[in-house]
Amino acid sequence: MKILEETLRKIEPLNKEMMDIARDRVDNLIKPKGSLGKLEDILVQLVGITGELYPKVDNKAVIVMAGDHGVCEEGVASSDQIVTAMQTENFTRGLTGVCALAKLANADVISVNVGVKHDIECEEVIDRRIRRGTNNIKKGPAMTREEAIKSIEIGIEMAVKQINEGKNILTTGEMGIGNTTPTTAILCSITGKCAEEVTGVGANLPIEKLQNKIDVIKEAIRVNKPDPRDAIDVLSKVGGFEIGAMAGVMLAGAAKRIPVIVDGYIATASAILACLLEPNTKHYLIGSHKSHEKGAKFATDYLGLKPMLDMDMRLGEGSGGVLAFSIVESATYMNREMVTFNEASIVPA
Amino acid sequence: MKILEETLRKIEPLNKEMMDIARDRVDNLIKPKGSLGKLEDILVQLVGITGELYPKVDNKAVIVMAGDHGVCEEGVASSDQIVTAMQTENFTRGLTGVCALAKLANADVISVNVGVKHDIECEEVIDRRIRRGTNNIKKGPAMTREEAIKSIEIGIEMAVKQINEGKNILTTGEMGIGNTTPTTAILCSITGKCAEEVTGVGANLPIEKLQNKIDVIKEAIRVNKPDPRDAIDVLSKVGGFEIGAMAGVMLAGAAKRIPVIVDGYIATASAILACLLEPNTKHYLIGSHKSHEKGAKFATDYLGLKPMLDMDMRLGEGSGGVLAFSIVESATYMNREMVTFNEASIVPA
Repeated sequence: MKILEETLRKIEPLNKEMMDIARDRVDNLIKPKGSLGKLEDILVQLVGITGELYPKVDNKAVIVMAGDHGVCEEGVASSDQIVTAMQTENFTRGLTGVCALAKLANADVISVNVGVKHDIECEEVIDRRIRRGTNNIKKGPAMTREEAIKSIEIGIEMAVKQINEGKNILTTGEMGIGNTTPTTAILCSITGKCAEEVTGVGANLPIEKLQNKIDVIKEAIRVNKPDPRDAIDVLSKVGGFEIGAMAGVMLAGAAKRIPVIVDGYIATASAILACLLEPNTKHYLIGSHKSHEKGAKFATDYLGLKPMLDMDMRLGEGSGGVLAFSIVESATYMNREMVTFNEASIVPA
Repeated sequence: MKILEETLRKIEPLNKEMMDIARDRVDNLIKPKGSLGKLEDILVQLVGITGELYPKVDNKAVIVMAGDHGVCEEGVASSDQIVTAMQTENFTRGLTGVCALAKLANADVISVNVGVKHDIECEEVIDRRIRRGTNNIKKGPAMTREEAIKSIEIGIEMAVKQINEGKNILTTGEMGIGNTTPTTAILCSITGKCAEEVTGVGANLPIEKLQNKIDVIKEAIRVNKPDPRDAIDVLSKVGGFEIGAMAGVMLAGAAKRIPVIVDGYIATASAILACLLEPNTKHYLIGSHKSHEKGAKFATDYLGLKPMLDMDMRLGEGSGGVLAFSIVESATYMNREMVTFNEASIVPA
């Protein structure tokens, strides 16, 4: 609890003074004012985050948190839970989707076991297993309050380690068969949204099983009665270890003044939890893509994120976050490489 | 005319057989089927274009075509035409928006003068000036039919040179104060769309001058009566030198089986002309971003392009096309770096 409390205390508003200077410079670069759209906004945000007029985001990592879910016994996922363990290992071998994209983006992929059910036989996976999967949220709490805090603190630990090693931008990934179910339960618990409106098929759940998934989510909320004002309560009752750990990465980024790109649907649940713990966290988050998962648009709108990529992707793993690295980095190139009208001796209209 | 005719004759359909093989491989990579969305579609398209199962798009260029527009005397643009010349030079000095983004993307920037009004004092700008700006399309044709063909053939020449030097992906950029006016005139001439519905403010034209711009476009079409079935007629009557040259780049890409990313609003006019000249060209084009310019969505929908980036950008110069380079390249990394379920010994659901 001490690590979490200390982290929350360190999260401050952005540096408005530097943001004003950055906006003025961006407005005066040799282009029609505003014509680089979100790149301009991202640059100003990066300046506010770092307090530097020429921020860099060239040292990248995606921290992939893996955990299993007891609720899988309710038939909410189409894959066997062994896949969580296999993919958690595959992240260290460069074989999965996020690894392929990270290779081009020159980003490190960190694979962390926070609660995988099956054995992990791979030393490169960082072992912080809290337990072999959560409990079935349809029948009771996913985890204890202490375990929820621990999951967040593991995320903080992992992010701080990366930042201390020189990373200046992070994104989160996840692996956890069945985890769109706790994600949707968190989303509905905190926002009050009805499960029917935001529950999707995740990783290709057959459409005839969707109503059961909706019923499970509603029952999980009815049985557990998570307190929508208490992020730890929501996480412990209807969440997941990897979801808590990703929230920890976001909080650590904010505390250490490093931008964190929010990947897809699962990551938005982590972001909502992180922002509930400390509202200033949201200023350190950058949207990535419009996930194809049904509830994703509602979640990013709720967070006020403006995703840049529209790829119809719904893989998870941090794939969308990694794809956004080059876009965010482009904003820093705009800032560093372009000249102002004054510098180019052009009189703007 | 001979170069254009020969180029058109070489444009063939995609390699469907190889596309089927690629789709099968993509469906069997270790991820839920379809979960990498547009990246999967792009990869299959790249395989169809190149005929190779593991295509590369790592040798990139943006060819920026610059030209001026006689219609500027009608008050349709907010900047002075001297800016066309200054920016055409600045492209060779790494100072503009597209240069900044190209530096990160590791793409060459080629600056070509196809019809700039003012003097260009810079040897690095490739000089293919047809004339010092088009005629005022409100009063008559922008150029002769021969000049229209020449503009396209300059584009073909420039693209072929790049491809012969090893480039395996291209995008087009443009610089031409006032060129959203001929772009919209081309769009309306060919699609029959009403100018009111697609005319935007371009590079920050004051809103009170928008009606005049619409009136100018309508008058240009009324006076010139471009034949919507004849791309050369439309280009010569209401187009621009840089718009024709970009169409030439697209045709050359298709003829040489190289993908061409379609940048923003102006580039869609070139794409529509290229596809009217040879409909198979469209299979070689890849969408980039949803330009913030008013008519852009209609134009990309008309072309059947699915832009990947939603950046609120409206700079032109090829900036959106260059930003999309890394996304398109990511599709090739997905294909090369990921393994199939068989290779990873995972049984898919």
